[in-house]
Amino acid sequence: MEIKHVVIAGAGVLGSQIAFQAARCGFKVKIWNRHIDRAERRLAAIKAQFEKDMNANDGDYDAAMDNIVSISNDMEKTVADADLVIESVSESVEIKKDFYEKVCPLLPENCILTSNSSTFIPSDLVGFTDRPERFAHMHFSNHIWKHNVAEIVGNPKTDPEVIQDLVDFARQIKMVPVVLKKEQHGYIMNAPLVPLLNAAMALWANGVADPHTIDKDWMIANGSPLGPFMIQDIVGFRTTYAVVTNQYKQTGQEIFKKIADKLKPMIDAGHTGVESGQGFYHYPNAEFKDPNFFK
Amino acid sequence: MEIKHVVIAGAGVLGSQIAFQAARCGFKVKIWNRHIDRAERRLAAIKAQFEKDMNANDGDYDAAMDNIVSISNDMEKTVADADLVIESVSESVEIKKDFYEKVCPLLPENCILTSNSSTFIPSDLVGFTDRPERFAHMHFSNHIWKHNVAEIVGNPKTDPEVIQDLVDFARQIKMVPVVLKKEQHGYIMNAPLVPLLNAAMALWANGVADPHTIDKDWMIANGSPLGPFMIQDIVGFRTTYAVVTNQYKQTGQEIFKKIADKLKPMIDAGHTGVESGQGFYHYPNAEFKDPNFFK
Repeated sequence: MEIKHVVIAGAGVLGSQIAFQAARCGFKVKIWNRHIDRAERRLAAIKAQFEKDMNANDGDYDAAMDNIVSISNDMEKTVADADLVIESVSESVEIKKDFYEKVCPLLPENCILTSNSSTFIPSDLVGFTDRPERFAHMHFSNHIWKHNVAEIVGNPKTDPEVIQDLVDFARQIKMVPVVLKKEQHGYIMNAPLVPLLNAAMALWANGVADPHTIDKDWMIANGSPLGPFMIQDIVGFRTTYAVVTNQYKQTGQEIFKKIADKLKPMIDAGHTGVESGQGFYHYPNAEFKDPNFFK
Repeated sequence: MEIKHVVIAGAGVLGSQIAFQAARCGFKVKIWNRHIDRAERRLAAIKAQFEKDMNANDGDYDAAMDNIVSISNDMEKTVADADLVIESVSESVEIKKDFYEKVCPLLPENCILTSNSSTFIPSDLVGFTDRPERFAHMHFSNHIWKHNVAEIVGNPKTDPEVIQDLVDFARQIKMVPVVLKKEQHGYIMNAPLVPLLNAAMALWANGVADPHTIDKDWMIANGSPLGPFMIQDIVGFRTTYAVVTNQYKQTGQEIFKKIADKLKPMIDAGHTGVESGQGFYHYPNAEFKDPNFFK
């Protein structure tokens, strides 16, 4: 099946980037978002990131934006002719359930539905949809135009042709498609990243070294462009706090509580990472300094 | 105290690089190694690695080698005037114990003794020495001239002036010194690396994806110059096999046995990583293709 009409549902950090990337590669893209103004601000914020990452020759922000044909909170109108809906709403099972239950009756019969969820696997979400054969996960990385990998994995009932359609689509939007042989929490890119970040935060929480020293050591020793605390700033402290709090509940290991206790006062002070302007590092040109923006 | 006469004991992968780097920075270096021919081969192998990593302007292999004044298996003669002995013998507690018990009576009274051990902490080894105040760990990274960080940490009795002497020495050999506030297994560079590599190997052992796919995904998504299986090839499968086998014994977690079972047939076939010419990748120009070299 040829995918022509693409809808991105939820224009957060990744959703807005996916919409932009598909538009940049010639797809006519529609965005559904509960708050139209926030989606517009997210899309506007891409310009600086994209132009910093890419050479001028590699792309034209304005030309890409011309292919975003609508930004709307009208779900029915937005998905009416969709061949592919990419769900990128908040990482909450209630919000995702609510979205799927509302959107499915509105979708064309053959529409493929995917989730960009970072923390769930397809089998966690497929029960909220009406189309297990046409439901899969397609997971992207931040700065999608540069870190251009699309992780694709179905639930046990996903039609292999749908996986192939998604592989073809991923290539069309200049992604390197990676099809997982099995469902996996964290896919491939995050499964090793989470224990890396946890171990780095444990060094900090245990008083072995401070975050900047740990980053410096890691970057020099491994030739990595980013240290673990720079990555934490990008991930955002709210997400990390939720993850470590959850890990403490599940494992009872004191180290997760120690990490959460170190993060809490920073979050309370509104220092939640790159987008707030202050995390482990300072970002004077952050786009979203208003702490109410995320509430 | 000014460090002038430096001895490297054990010219394995790292030991030979430390000796070379100190020589390159103007120190007159003596090497003690049980097998003189192996030390010579290790030093010869550095030439290609060093010249590949560095610009011609950044250093001259032959000039550096001129500062290596002796390679000997005569311990007494080698350490007789040492200000600093850097122990880099095999990563076995028996071998290290034997070395310390033999070398300590031969050292000048004020000689500083350090270990480059990756897996032990200073408190594990200090009891084998006669000088807790003058014993600390100074840990380096592979390709020392490029990944130029020196992790420094004492045991509870280490004289703070000795730590300062080691910081000064690290700077003199063009390292970025990182002093840990506490003893830590894996220091800073390896503490987060081990769980990262374990998680990547778990993806492989659980059949989620093959090593090359995992590396590709990780490298694109995180902008890293090396994937986890490329790092495994550098670490070497024998080391990894020992680590995961030990982790299985300690934790009883089946995943470590699964990983060990995947590595075993590769090791048995002589495919142990970069130096053997074959690991997860093929290295046609490997220096040490003779599998007996490491025995």
